[in-house]
Amino acid sequence: MPPVGSQKQVAICCRAAIFPAQELLSLPRKPMASRNRPAPLSSPIQATLDELLRHFRKDRRGEVATYIPELGKANPEWFGICVVTADGAVYEAGDTGQAFTIQSISKPFTYGIALEDNGTRAVLDKIWVEPTGEAFNSISLDPATGRPLNPMINAGAIATTGLVEGRTAAQKMNRLLEVFSRYTGRPMAIDRSVYQSESETGHRNRAIAHMLRNFNIFQEDPIPSLEAYFMQCSILVTCRDLGIMAATLANGGLNPVTGTRAVVAEYVENMLSVMGSCGMYDAAGEWIYNVGMPAKSGVAGGILAVLPGQLGIGVFSPRLDSHGNSVRGIEVCRELSRRFSLHMFHTTRPGRSVIRHTGTGGQTTSNRLRPEDEAALLHKHGGRIALLEIQGELLFSTAEIVIRRALQEAARAGYVILDFRHVPASDLVAAGLLRELASGLIRAGKHPVFSGTRHLPLLAKVCKKELPPADFERLTWIADLDLALEHCENQLIQAHTELRHSGHLATFAECDLVKGLKADEIRLLEALLENRSFRKGQDILRAGDSSMDVYFLIQGKASAWLDAGEGAAKRVATFTPGMVFGEMALLDQSRRSARVTADTDLECRLLPPAALKQVASEHPRIMMRLLHNLSKLLAARLRKANAELSALYQ
Amino acid sequence: MPPVGSQKQVAICCRAAIFPAQELLSLPRKPMASRNRPAPLSSPIQATLDELLRHFRKDRRGEVATYIPELGKANPEWFGICVVTADGAVYEAGDTGQAFTIQSISKPFTYGIALEDNGTRAVLDKIWVEPTGEAFNSISLDPATGRPLNPMINAGAIATTGLVEGRTAAQKMNRLLEVFSRYTGRPMAIDRSVYQSESETGHRNRAIAHMLRNFNIFQEDPIPSLEAYFMQCSILVTCRDLGIMAATLANGGLNPVTGTRAVVAEYVENMLSVMGSCGMYDAAGEWIYNVGMPAKSGVAGGILAVLPGQLGIGVFSPRLDSHGNSVRGIEVCRELSRRFSLHMFHTTRPGRSVIRHTGTGGQTTSNRLRPEDEAALLHKHGGRIALLEIQGELLFSTAEIVIRRALQEAARAGYVILDFRHVPASDLVAAGLLRELASGLIRAGKHPVFSGTRHLPLLAKVCKKELPPADFERLTWIADLDLALEHCENQLIQAHTELRHSGHLATFAECDLVKGLKADEIRLLEALLENRSFRKGQDILRAGDSSMDVYFLIQGKASAWLDAGEGAAKRVATFTPGMVFGEMALLDQSRRSARVTADTDLECRLLPPAALKQVASEHPRIMMRLLHNLSKLLAARLRKANAELSALYQ
Repeated sequence: MPPVGSQKQVAICCRAAIFPAQELLSLPRKPMASRNRPAPLSSPIQATLDELLRHFRKDRRGEVATYIPELGKANPEWFGICVVTADGAVYEAGDTGQAFTIQSISKPFTYGIALEDNGTRAVLDKIWVEPTGEAFNSISLDPATGRPLNPMINAGAIATTGLVEGRTAAQKMNRLLEVFSRYTGRPMAIDRSVYQSESETGHRNRAIAHMLRNFNIFQEDPIPSLEAYFMQCSILVTCRDLGIMAATLANGGLNPVTGTRAVVAEYVENMLSVMGSCGMYDAAGEWIYNVGMPAKSGVAGGILAVLPGQLGIGVFSPRLDSHGNSVRGIEVCRELSRRFSLHMFHTTRPGRSVIRHTGTGGQTTSNRLRPEDEAALLHKHGGRIALLEIQGELLFSTAEIVIRRALQEAARAGYVILDFRHVPASDLVAAGLLRELASGLIRAGKHPVFSGTRHLPLLAKVCKKELPPADFERLTWIADLDLALEHCENQLIQAHTELRHSGHLATFAECDLVKGLKADEIRLLEALLENRSFRKGQDILRAGDSSMDVYFLIQGKASAWLDAGEGAAKRVATFTPGMVFGEMALLDQSRRSARVTADTDLECRLLPPAALKQVASEHPRIMMRLLHNLSKLLAARLRKANAELSALYQ
Repeated sequence: MPPVGSQKQVAICCRAAIFPAQELLSLPRKPMASRNRPAPLSSPIQATLDELLRHFRKDRRGEVATYIPELGKANPEWFGICVVTADGAVYEAGDTGQAFTIQSISKPFTYGIALEDNGTRAVLDKIWVEPTGEAFNSISLDPATGRPLNPMINAGAIATTGLVEGRTAAQKMNRLLEVFSRYTGRPMAIDRSVYQSESETGHRNRAIAHMLRNFNIFQEDPIPSLEAYFMQCSILVTCRDLGIMAATLANGGLNPVTGTRAVVAEYVENMLSVMGSCGMYDAAGEWIYNVGMPAKSGVAGGILAVLPGQLGIGVFSPRLDSHGNSVRGIEVCRELSRRFSLHMFHTTRPGRSVIRHTGTGGQTTSNRLRPEDEAALLHKHGGRIALLEIQGELLFSTAEIVIRRALQEAARAGYVILDFRHVPASDLVAAGLLRELASGLIRAGKHPVFSGTRHLPLLAKVCKKELPPADFERLTWIADLDLALEHCENQLIQAHTELRHSGHLATFAECDLVKGLKADEIRLLEALLENRSFRKGQDILRAGDSSMDVYFLIQGKASAWLDAGEGAAKRVATFTPGMVFGEMALLDQSRRSARVTADTDLECRLLPPAALKQVASEHPRIMMRLLHNLSKLLAARLRKANAELSALYQ
């Protein structure tokens, strides 16, 4: 039991109580699925990591850090490489489960916590963000204000830890360990003996802390923060942890393996910026030039590098070069960057794939089946409906393309549907620009429709908050693209004709299926029909039913639905008076394939199977005409489906 | 006429002869389409630029540079803002056509030329890439080697110009102006009086040049390079030029407005790296932190900033702050970055949209119509065919996801189709990884198929060069996704049964359309048929024909084609023995909608319209059965089309 008395020692005891002392440097290796399963198919990426491990294992340059004895105990041969993608795939090779102390790699993460706890402005007041061009342990305070030049040098890092919530070292460490656990996805602890050594031998850092107090960067006793800083450097991590922490930054602060948010997205840019400009000590320029990834190293042999939006890298090997960076770690980062072109300025152009598909209401129609006159009208005027399917994440540059295309389309179209089903996320800027687009379209007398936005609540929120209520009313929000299309079609038809609506009453003779029959044939057939009424919401047919009636819709509206899995249903057709459903009964005795539900109270005539049989045997000419009409209906639907398919396959 | 005699003066005369002296600072304003057309619909991005122009016009801080008299002649009120996207959309506000001298903004572009002319290694030997933390005119040479610390300070820039091809200033300027013209898309010229002033008063730069000679950075007379450097700084640009130059870097070196390549893609990363770490003189860290775009400014009042992969910005206003940067230029960049979140670390995650669609041969089938037994077989075993449609640019992180998904699919599938139609570009790394994927699939006994790669010659080249010939043979390349699907289907069917191939001979009774007819009905119908033979490649039907025969295919293979525009045709169906085509003649007298061509020599039976009429009137039961079978065929095709549509619309 260490002597108790100073605040510092109390702090240690607190930590030891909350986070069980971890005396061994080696954590039990976590079982990894990828190792337990046979892998007949192998990934070329895994093969590259394995090869780099073999190759750089031979590099025995450098020395293990010995400025505190605990670090000197590391096995100089330890070597691990871990690459984690922004969507959470983990590739690893070598000693990726070996624990070691995080040391300076903690600095950007603590900086993120200080930003969350104080905001950017307050943090910049205490710690500036200019590279020093000097070594990591230089004091580098602004001569006038005493403000440390950046948070990656020790002076800046100690001041940063001072800004973490908590008055005592223990309180600050609680906060730090809780956040670090979100970055790694497992409970974190410190190596107590490393911490004690750091604290006992950290005279230079103690001098820096007092210098910061002298300049009023610390307005109170700096020692609790200094002790928390020593503890923070003693947090035990593995190479796999570093990979996941890096990938969390690459993924905008969301841990891609656990799905937990580790830091507010807006601060990730700041963290990466200081890593980019000040992370690699006195070689920041060369590092960005040749490796091109914001990175941070620690004297226990860890290196962490981030390719924003794409992936994170963790490397661990204890032998250090004269700058205090892991020799193999640096080499592996260089080689990974070279082999895989992992440079932050080697980017995709996200604008090139943001438009998934464009079309018009003439090429793509809703699943509502239309009587011939309406279908002809849509064929002729469908170009007035413009459809833009968008995909990928929306930020300024991708939203700009959406807006530009939407404005182009709006020049000829009156209805502009933007479909967001394939947009996984939108930032605030893109939401604001889309709101302005909608507003502009409305002012120009156009009809904007946003579909598939349910998973993008920010967009609706921004529009609701910032559009004048009258404009918000005129922006149509529809859950489903098919319903959005139908909405625009209805508007278009209504603008040209009296829409054939559900209140409309058809006679049996007007039904599509009996077209071309003579009056006496119709009378003959009509005599065989039964009348049937349904209430709104009632099921008329169910999938799997073996009833084989053919339904002629006289009044009201009905829709056919397919099971879309997970309790959801997808509308595949909507019927209005004069249309027929259940017509496949004319062909065979198979079961119903879809559910048909009454959208309104409705009236139909029903041709039962026995009557159908009678028609086929006694009145082959009537049956021939029914089959002829059925073939024409099917051919028309097939033409439409093929046209849509070929538009999608363009 | 200036006195001639020194090499320097000769050089000037050369320049004057080749590039007509441009004595006026103002170029004629180029007509811009966006200004001439009425704009009933307005872009919110344009509105923001207009607003920023109005707002920052009020900022009159700073002083116009006067270290040479010519710069002092600038109107301090000039103010232009230009944003150009990576796909070439130009937004501009204010004095974007006003010409001014490029000054230090030339440095990164000349650096790119030096890289093209010498390679990275030779350039780094002469000029290093570390920020200095000092002002732009500091000499900053490495004390040991004399190597300038980076190419953005004057010493480094003069050494860079020395590395541009050409022995004389004139030769170097020819090269520079030619490349700068590719960046701007218009012929470039220098302002001769500014150049003369710069040269006459450039004592400090002359001292630097001699110091570089002293350290053997120049191994010969540095004066031609120094003069070329002065001229390079005197190149006349407009704010619009700066925007397009910046967008060219954002677009990987390809001018997005003209489509001309200005610099080899691999050097763009280097240019942006030195702009990022050393571009904004002594405030690089703060600039990256708060603005987050590699940038460069010039003392005539220009600023250029690049958001890689996304856009470029040019701002121009002559009043400078104490660092020599345009006051309004800095403010506009800060504000654009703030409003639109334009930070290089605020990125999309390109991996989130790289998989456009996945499916199996059970969900999506080729346009080859299959007899029932084959269709059933495909329905049952189609899961053995995996289909991945890929989209967006391929580089490491997107290719990694493609590979990961392909390996997942290959665990259950034998055939893996990767379709590249929607991939606009692939880098060398992605091509290499895909080659390794193919190789691994083949080793695991799988059948990889690459479709739609015609526009990606690099991929085929890498595979051909680096795969063992035996493996390359087993990797199937097919132009079209539909043909790729058919290929895999054929393989699958062949593996399970004897494929119904073109050598197969059907009898008329086996034809799909006559199923269910009695033997005497078939004999009756057969008596009405005519025999017809076609040679391979011969057209059987043409779109628009009014012939109304129904064809029963007895032997051989035929395909139906639709005109896909631009002389191309798209296969919509393939027929094998026992199938029928031209069957719509049963329904109506409309014209043929597709061309049908013999894929092999073939035999058919043909039912002429007169015979059909006779059947309808004299044998309604036969006609009823034909229509019944037709409806079933159409219904089956419709089901298939709808299944594909709903898979695509997931």
